[in-house]
Amino acid sequence: MTTTGRQLISTLSADGTMVLELEEKTFPQPTGNQVLVKMEAAPINPSDLFLITAGADLENATYEAGKVTMQIMPQLAAGQSGRHGKPQTVGNEGAGEVIAAGEGEQAQALLGQRVSCVPGNAFSEYAIADAMMCLPLGDHSAEEGASSFVNPMTALGFVETAKREGQDAIVHAAAASNLGQMLNRICQEDGMSLVNIVRKEAQVELLKDQGAAHVVNSSDDDYMKQLTAAIDATGAYLGFDPIGGGKTSDTVLRAMEQVAAAKMTEFSRYGSNQQKKMYIYGRLEMGPTILTPSYGFGWTVSGWLLMPFLASCDMQTMIALRQRVQDGLKTTFASSYKTRVSLDEMLTKDAMMDYAQMSTGEKYLVTPHG
Amino acid sequence: MTTTGRQLISTLSADGTMVLELEEKTFPQPTGNQVLVKMEAAPINPSDLFLITAGADLENATYEAGKVTMQIMPQLAAGQSGRHGKPQTVGNEGAGEVIAAGEGEQAQALLGQRVSCVPGNAFSEYAIADAMMCLPLGDHSAEEGASSFVNPMTALGFVETAKREGQDAIVHAAAASNLGQMLNRICQEDGMSLVNIVRKEAQVELLKDQGAAHVVNSSDDDYMKQLTAAIDATGAYLGFDPIGGGKTSDTVLRAMEQVAAAKMTEFSRYGSNQQKKMYIYGRLEMGPTILTPSYGFGWTVSGWLLMPFLASCDMQTMIALRQRVQDGLKTTFASSYKTRVSLDEMLTKDAMMDYAQMSTGEKYLVTPHG
Repeated sequence: MTTTGRQLISTLSADGTMVLELEEKTFPQPTGNQVLVKMEAAPINPSDLFLITAGADLENATYEAGKVTMQIMPQLAAGQSGRHGKPQTVGNEGAGEVIAAGEGEQAQALLGQRVSCVPGNAFSEYAIADAMMCLPLGDHSAEEGASSFVNPMTALGFVETAKREGQDAIVHAAAASNLGQMLNRICQEDGMSLVNIVRKEAQVELLKDQGAAHVVNSSDDDYMKQLTAAIDATGAYLGFDPIGGGKTSDTVLRAMEQVAAAKMTEFSRYGSNQQKKMYIYGRLEMGPTILTPSYGFGWTVSGWLLMPFLASCDMQTMIALRQRVQDGLKTTFASSYKTRVSLDEMLTKDAMMDYAQMSTGEKYLVTPHG
Repeated sequence: MTTTGRQLISTLSADGTMVLELEEKTFPQPTGNQVLVKMEAAPINPSDLFLITAGADLENATYEAGKVTMQIMPQLAAGQSGRHGKPQTVGNEGAGEVIAAGEGEQAQALLGQRVSCVPGNAFSEYAIADAMMCLPLGDHSAEEGASSFVNPMTALGFVETAKREGQDAIVHAAAASNLGQMLNRICQEDGMSLVNIVRKEAQVELLKDQGAAHVVNSSDDDYMKQLTAAIDATGAYLGFDPIGGGKTSDTVLRAMEQVAAAKMTEFSRYGSNQQKKMYIYGRLEMGPTILTPSYGFGWTVSGWLLMPFLASCDMQTMIALRQRVQDGLKTTFASSYKTRVSLDEMLTKDAMMDYAQMSTGEKYLVTPHG
């Protein structure tokens, strides 16, 4: 038995032309511990946008039914020579119904159930997924389970990373995002102090209403003062930054150093002995990361990605994390969406110009059969 | 018994005025495991210049006998509020004769000997030093022993750091420096592969004459090609960068990623899984460090300082490292100097404008009694 349906394909040419197209595809009968999922809901995460809108001239793109042709910034296109001419599927995660399963025990156990999954081609009517990575949703809707992997596991990964490094406090930038709100809830549950950095007064209120103790607004004139006070109060010398470009991490490192230096009794030309660390886990800004020589030599800036983190977890930890997500789908790990679009609507100019902005709290949900 | 002599003092005011002055000081009789060293030779290292010339307007400074008054860049002066109005001694290391010793056994054993030491006020006629940190020089001259701490221990620290992180190859920028030449010799002795980055053809020749297998010239048009070839040949995914500002580390990370990506069979939007790391251990350029989004998320940039590294070593390792330096003072750990200056000559405009440039291979040696 085979199943036929449409899926989104992204193809970049060496000349910088990127084509997004809904292509008819035949999905084979799953084998082993594979399952075939009829995709009902899939979020458009910032990490998905890299293959959809990153560096694209959306204003001057050509929009046809089920097909968009656009130009990518030359340096970005050149940096992706590995995918030139190689069609890529898109969509990290989603949820739907298991309509066929391989002969494997885990796969068979999921047959007929609604699950969340991480197929890598979630923007599709159907997807083959690994049963090991599927989360049975029980009575939850596909929409409730659609974002149960990337954001929940990332937020849990931040807390786990901080604990591993002996820290009991975290700084988080762009903290009003779905991910940030989740992190805020997890930190409260786990007794991990959290310094939330946001850009708008409404976001300050949002997080405070959700119990956040420390929210600082980078748009305020006294941002640096707010930030140092919060770092001083929490002892947060480890942070996570999804913006990447510009001075977000630099500013946090400067604030950390100011707090540490204020506690020193003697001046040192090398700065404080306090180790300060920022993880960059996204690229909401594609410009270069700027690090000023303002915090001595006791600092580290490092990339952070979900998959290598998960690879560093043992099976026991993985199962515990997944169980925690499953138990908290409607509470701790709940996501919200600005709007729902079909696969066709996802490729319209209005939608693309909107979700490409990755505005905080304005996430799109794709409903392939909706 | 007390001893009187002149020592260099650096004082920064809140208004950005920095005064360097030779002041008459009385040195007390050493106690415990302290020794009093009659300083004969002290190198001007880049790390010393932070308190002498960093950010200073040397062209328009006021030069008097034994005194220089200058203006420091406002942002740099503001960043050092911890030392405003607090006189600082200058000079990390040097060598001379132990003319008095505390009652401690280690101190007494050094009485009358020529030693190298790390007093923190090496630009002085006399200095109190910790006997534990002194290295007896035997028949070596003070000039031969003057640089036996900062550069040798730093170069050994790089190799030790690489080994700890499971690496068998290192990239080093500004590699023709005294430190770089030392590292080149150590790596050959230890079987550690080394990619040397230099800026001039003469420096390529210099290092190749000293047995370096991989020397790349950043001034060449095909620098990137040279660099990726050397990284590919050595598997060097760890580097040390004394320049700090600008794109030195960024370029090395890009080259590392290109080498790693070329070995991948499938494209990944997140870049290769190869972890890439650059340590910034100096600030030859005071501008911001620029990191472009060109190497995925598997990277780390971190400060590296000698003292925290040494603090991480056990006593056994420290003794072994010091013994190795002592055994190789005329060979592996030999330094060379462009010129020798007295304390008074050190504060002349010509000298300051020259050593402030920190040109490779043009190190100054201060001879306080010369």
